[in-house]
Amino acid sequence: MASGDYFHIEAGNIIDMLKNECDTIGVYMDIGNTGEVYISENQNTNSKIANLRPLLCSEENTLRKIETERKLGHRRVHTDGGVTFKNINTTVIMNSIQLGIQRSVEGSNVPDRDVLMDDFMTVETAVIHANDSTQNTAHKVMLKTYAPIAFQHFRDLFGIRSEHFVKSFCEVSLIELPNPGASGSVFYVTQNDEFITKTIRHKEAEFLQKLLPGYYLNLNQNPQTLLPKFFGLYCYKCVSKNVRTVVMNNVLPSLIKVHQKYDLKGSTCNRKASKTESEKISPTFKDLDYMNHHPEGIFLEEDVHRDLLNAIQRDCRVLESFQIIDYSLLLGIHNVDQAKREEICTEHEGFNPKKEPPSASGDGYLDNVEEIISQDPDNQRKDENVSSLTSHRENLELAKGYIFPGIPARQANGENILLFIGIIDILQSYKLKKKLEHVWKSIVYDSDSVSVHNPRFYSQRFQDFITKTVFKTTPLPPKATKRKALFRLKP
Amino acid sequence: MASGDYFHIEAGNIIDMLKNECDTIGVYMDIGNTGEVYISENQNTNSKIANLRPLLCSEENTLRKIETERKLGHRRVHTDGGVTFKNINTTVIMNSIQLGIQRSVEGSNVPDRDVLMDDFMTVETAVIHANDSTQNTAHKVMLKTYAPIAFQHFRDLFGIRSEHFVKSFCEVSLIELPNPGASGSVFYVTQNDEFITKTIRHKEAEFLQKLLPGYYLNLNQNPQTLLPKFFGLYCYKCVSKNVRTVVMNNVLPSLIKVHQKYDLKGSTCNRKASKTESEKISPTFKDLDYMNHHPEGIFLEEDVHRDLLNAIQRDCRVLESFQIIDYSLLLGIHNVDQAKREEICTEHEGFNPKKEPPSASGDGYLDNVEEIISQDPDNQRKDENVSSLTSHRENLELAKGYIFPGIPARQANGENILLFIGIIDILQSYKLKKKLEHVWKSIVYDSDSVSVHNPRFYSQRFQDFITKTVFKTTPLPPKATKRKALFRLKP
Repeated sequence: MASGDYFHIEAGNIIDMLKNECDTIGVYMDIGNTGEVYISENQNTNSKIANLRPLLCSEENTLRKIETERKLGHRRVHTDGGVTFKNINTTVIMNSIQLGIQRSVEGSNVPDRDVLMDDFMTVETAVIHANDSTQNTAHKVMLKTYAPIAFQHFRDLFGIRSEHFVKSFCEVSLIELPNPGASGSVFYVTQNDEFITKTIRHKEAEFLQKLLPGYYLNLNQNPQTLLPKFFGLYCYKCVSKNVRTVVMNNVLPSLIKVHQKYDLKGSTCNRKASKTESEKISPTFKDLDYMNHHPEGIFLEEDVHRDLLNAIQRDCRVLESFQIIDYSLLLGIHNVDQAKREEICTEHEGFNPKKEPPSASGDGYLDNVEEIISQDPDNQRKDENVSSLTSHRENLELAKGYIFPGIPARQANGENILLFIGIIDILQSYKLKKKLEHVWKSIVYDSDSVSVHNPRFYSQRFQDFITKTVFKTTPLPPKATKRKALFRLKP
Repeated sequence: MASGDYFHIEAGNIIDMLKNECDTIGVYMDIGNTGEVYISENQNTNSKIANLRPLLCSEENTLRKIETERKLGHRRVHTDGGVTFKNINTTVIMNSIQLGIQRSVEGSNVPDRDVLMDDFMTVETAVIHANDSTQNTAHKVMLKTYAPIAFQHFRDLFGIRSEHFVKSFCEVSLIELPNPGASGSVFYVTQNDEFITKTIRHKEAEFLQKLLPGYYLNLNQNPQTLLPKFFGLYCYKCVSKNVRTVVMNNVLPSLIKVHQKYDLKGSTCNRKASKTESEKISPTFKDLDYMNHHPEGIFLEEDVHRDLLNAIQRDCRVLESFQIIDYSLLLGIHNVDQAKREEICTEHEGFNPKKEPPSASGDGYLDNVEEIISQDPDNQRKDENVSSLTSHRENLELAKGYIFPGIPARQANGENILLFIGIIDILQSYKLKKKLEHVWKSIVYDSDSVSVHNPRFYSQRFQDFITKTVFKTTPLPPKATKRKALFRLKP
């Protein structure tokens, strides 16, 4: 579902939206022949059925489909191909992001001292002068930097030097993601592949601020966390519009080709990529697609599997405690064997990929990797962060022996793959979602009987799916299996 | 000033109390010939003087001095020598503390998982059956354990195993401090010298709970912190009275003789031990006494001095951010050379100190130390915590070469000493103090012009006193001094 402030939806889309909502918060929905909607707390048909009202499909809801495709949330693709966000040209936004990061990291004097609880709630304001290259005009941008000392501390924890951070954003232009998903946000990736910025809503920024102390707590106890690594939160008041952006680690590399990309929630309701999505160059597949492509799951070595699921379990407990729902496991798969075959193929065609700039669509080439990584000392750190999850990497046959923080795994067909994993979209709190829920509840449903234990429901289903369907352990050799079976026998 | 819930004070004591209050929050007070009180924000006599009213010494305030001495806060010493707290015999309280800690650490199943923000606010309730040995009766005690998972985590951080914690409290009886200071609290020390429990007020317990996330933040960033190490917070509902206790690290050893003990706040107003206090076996001296006993200060090696002041500065910033005032530096001095002389003296008299049990009054003997420390593996950890602050210990001539976490220093007369240091009484927030302030404001003063920047004022004065008056660096050898002097000359 689009998470923009306005929804332009068709009558049929309302039903899809309701289905998704029901699925997310763990209630069941049935639609009667005459359009009435039944909602119940469990699948047993004898359970309490909610009051029902006919679903009214008013003309206001029926908008032209073409508009839905062109505008998503605040992001609009114009007929001339230009992209705007809140009617601001995204190049202006990119320019503001670059100036803002330079200003807030380099310009202000962030004192080198311990983080205090107060620091999580601090907001620093400054005025920067930005240029609109498309219109050759200069204008003022009001910049708010949230929790500057806390984020500086987080960057320090991840070994990111301020100069490297500013350099990554400001020395070369950023790459706008052409396929930004269903949120209507604008995404920019730095050319060195390390950082990603995303526009977020007012409520999400507020929520992230509230989250920061608990986030710090988790970082300290669970350094292998798969939750987003937040590096900065900014608000630009630009042409009288507020644009809020968060800087995070980039989960999917563009320097290494990502052959498959999944957004997994642990649900099967409507969780299939649309036809339009599937036809894209780098589509984002969903749960049902995964089950179709990898019916036997993906295989990890036993200790890697254990560490990964352990990290996910710890992350999910944090998310649950903050009443967060609707997050996804972002899974990128680089097929090492396929990449080799493609490379041989490309060489035969006489094409030299080294001359191509890296792109954010996942079309980078292995040849670039070694060169780029060796130039940047911070990539060494990147590798240290993943520690034991990649400790068995050297045992697997990897192309060119490069170092990159992917998790080694195998497909059911025996092909070597590298996994890139992160838990994303964590800024949706149950309270926030609750409000949305009330929007449709007021149409279809006036009882208050829906379970309030939904973050737990969501977390459990998410973990169950990952444990039972997504990742498996490499089958043990026959001897070991036999020994294990013996232990199960009673004396 | 007594921090009990009721104040039994004489007319003259009211003036002392006001002086102390003014001093703590950083305003100046003058008393006119006819008893009127002037309060101003700075010492400049031309500054704004508050409205004044005569200080009324009503008969209600004039109570017999003998009662003041016998009852302090909720602690009362009866004519038969028995001590009660809220009219409960303190042996019953000790018994409850022991049962409570056993029950809450061993009895409940604290899950081995990460700490979440919620955990800081959790309260676990249980019923325990306690015996009153003085009356041979059994009664029920309602036990509340605050933030059990968070405190378990803190104990883990300090390397304190649950079995060791319970054993320290429950295997042998606790030692009640005979000289508990001015707070009217009851203090118990464990016989292994490691832990101390203190009864605290409702507001203080509430404040400690609020403090926990920031406390955790500080622990992670400043492991050399001198703030109290909190290991547990409990509330016992005992004979319909609530008794709240906090468990902390014990700053002053009883196994090593503490020759001098100071409670330093950085103030000179009324900061002198009373005649009664000075005549005690182990008196607690104050700021003016320190300046009298050590007019040149105490000397530390340069790096120890730097690390210590750095730790104090970081701690003060935390206290300031939580609007905490009125804390003290507790300083215990063990004079190594004096201890040697005393030992020789004792040996000549044919007295063997090994046969005496360790006491909490600071009368332990060096001979015990080696033996007791070698029995307990946790003392190794204790030593690791103080790291570089004691790294120069081995360079100093210490009696018997034992390992104990004292900070090596020298007195102006060249004698080797060991310092035991902690920042104590941190549960007084400015808001809490503000309320007390209003009590006397309503008598003498109705303006609202008193500065609100008082936690900063308090912190700065505290640090200034420690830096300029309490600790000095060992004077540099003449050559180095000369070189330093040269740098000051302009080229």
